[in-house]
Amino acid sequence: MKGAVLHGPYDVRYEERADPTIVAPTDAILRLSATCICGSDLWPYRGANPIKAPTPIGHEYCGIVEEVGPDVRTVKKGQFVIGSFFASDNSCPNCRHGYQTACVQRTPIIGAQAPYLRVPLADGTLVATADVPSPEMIPSLLAVSDVLGTGWFAATAANVTPRSTVVVVGDGAVGLLGILSADCMGAECIIAMSRHEKRQQLAREFGATDIVTERGDEGAARIRELTGGIGADSVLECVGTNESMWQAIGATRPGGYVSYVGVPHGVQLDGAKLFSTFIHLHGGPAPVRRFLPHLIDLVLGGSIDPGKVFDLTLPLAEVAEGYKAMDERRAIKTLLTT
Amino acid sequence: MKGAVLHGPYDVRYEERADPTIVAPTDAILRLSATCICGSDLWPYRGANPIKAPTPIGHEYCGIVEEVGPDVRTVKKGQFVIGSFFASDNSCPNCRHGYQTACVQRTPIIGAQAPYLRVPLADGTLVATADVPSPEMIPSLLAVSDVLGTGWFAATAANVTPRSTVVVVGDGAVGLLGILSADCMGAECIIAMSRHEKRQQLAREFGATDIVTERGDEGAARIRELTGGIGADSVLECVGTNESMWQAIGATRPGGYVSYVGVPHGVQLDGAKLFSTFIHLHGGPAPVRRFLPHLIDLVLGGSIDPGKVFDLTLPLAEVAEGYKAMDERRAIKTLLTT
Repeated sequence: MKGAVLHGPYDVRYEERADPTIVAPTDAILRLSATCICGSDLWPYRGANPIKAPTPIGHEYCGIVEEVGPDVRTVKKGQFVIGSFFASDNSCPNCRHGYQTACVQRTPIIGAQAPYLRVPLADGTLVATADVPSPEMIPSLLAVSDVLGTGWFAATAANVTPRSTVVVVGDGAVGLLGILSADCMGAECIIAMSRHEKRQQLAREFGATDIVTERGDEGAARIRELTGGIGADSVLECVGTNESMWQAIGATRPGGYVSYVGVPHGVQLDGAKLFSTFIHLHGGPAPVRRFLPHLIDLVLGGSIDPGKVFDLTLPLAEVAEGYKAMDERRAIKTLLTT
Repeated sequence: MKGAVLHGPYDVRYEERADPTIVAPTDAILRLSATCICGSDLWPYRGANPIKAPTPIGHEYCGIVEEVGPDVRTVKKGQFVIGSFFASDNSCPNCRHGYQTACVQRTPIIGAQAPYLRVPLADGTLVATADVPSPEMIPSLLAVSDVLGTGWFAATAANVTPRSTVVVVGDGAVGLLGILSADCMGAECIIAMSRHEKRQQLAREFGATDIVTERGDEGAARIRELTGGIGADSVLECVGTNESMWQAIGATRPGGYVSYVGVPHGVQLDGAKLFSTFIHLHGGPAPVRRFLPHLIDLVLGGSIDPGKVFDLTLPLAEVAEGYKAMDERRAIKTLLTT
């Protein structure tokens, strides 16, 4: 098969790769219905991590089970399934606590920007739908796999409740779906921090009640101004830089909650400075598996349409252009047809 | 009157100070029943902060109301009252959220190692008992003012619940009362990290089920060993150094809770490293006022005896020896009679 391979900074190629095969008896092979490019793929794309050898890339997926290993019990050939970016057994103590991305057997999903994908620990990782969904549902179901699951975790970790005043730092796809999640959870006021007109519009469609364009200390000051001088109850940090983290902390009221869901790059938290903010802080690689059944139900029930974050659809062969468009912020998120 | 004054590193003197008077109409003057030395007093005592001028010291207190300003409504002359180390109006949005130490009018209590004390915002700050308690209750009621309130906040912020496995890092008075608090909250297993025999003994009296003597990475590894390889649900960081903070984080399971209640000194949290731990983090100057009514009830009802942390009692005139004994770890906590 042909799939995406990262060769170095700004160099993603669509090229021949080995067909995935069953390696462990708990594996499944999926024929993907669609795949996509993640904001977190842009870090290695931009050279944040050294690329030692050409590496298959991609970790968001949904599709039809093509084959299962001999120890797979619940997942069956022909089912439509969704999984997340870490395979997990869904039964170890960390999984039972709802932190499947810290599963003692966790295994990263690698190379999902391709027509076929091997998923380890299939029974623990994959959630099947009752029926094979119609093609128009695919973008929203694909979004569940990572970007919605991550936005949902951000809102959960920031303790969003029906009475909350919520701020979302970052207008990427995760931030936008953090807004949708906060809206689903009944937040009273949702302030999107964004300077990008198209993203502001989608933020409003997803439930944002206010837009703040200021950034950094100025942005935090503007949020305090909008919240009676106190700060917001819940702030979702969906960028991952030091500036955005401190912007989030500065926008939170004493005793409020900050979540952070993107791998931090250069974030340094001084203990004494943090101490004086009184915030609750929680984050990490989103345990999307915890939320998959509920989010799939919401999508299939028609109450949310997270697939709207895909504003560019390309055939997999044009994956390089998909990265370029996201890197240059011409696209929020690129869906790749397989 | 005579009271304690910090002149410089290791130089606390008992000397003449001005009698406190009503300055603002919301002030009260207390005749203190007793006062004491806080672990946090040891930071300036040891020279962590430069002392620019001789400074009255002390912030833990309980006593009889001697005089009130004209705007004081609920607190009355002759009542026995307890307050905490920040005066607060107990009515601003931060107070209403339970973060009275972030009160928009907050004012530090200074100079409580003395026979008389001025307390600002008396109505918001002070909680009166129905009757004047008997002298043998004074140590435990004094403990409520800061050290128990802080230990209680540590346990609350670390989400201690009836099923929790709890670790307490630090065997100072706050850590020891964190153990007592976790026990009151019904924790199933409470592991005290301590190498000091006398403190281990008090830890067990307060409810510790296990003692771990290893520190740092080794200590964290020992905790994981004791918790099925996963880590504890709730870890109370009651020291405030970088080593103790990372020891606490390393002892926590993914998705578990770390609280920190002492002013951090040299604590640096790398965002990416923190991200991979999946912990919840919460702390700050303990909003003791939130807990005062409940903790006073527990003490007066006889169900807890936090005054046991005072293992040295001296007349106020010997305050210098009180500091020395705590600095040299000969005493856990010094009560000063007035």
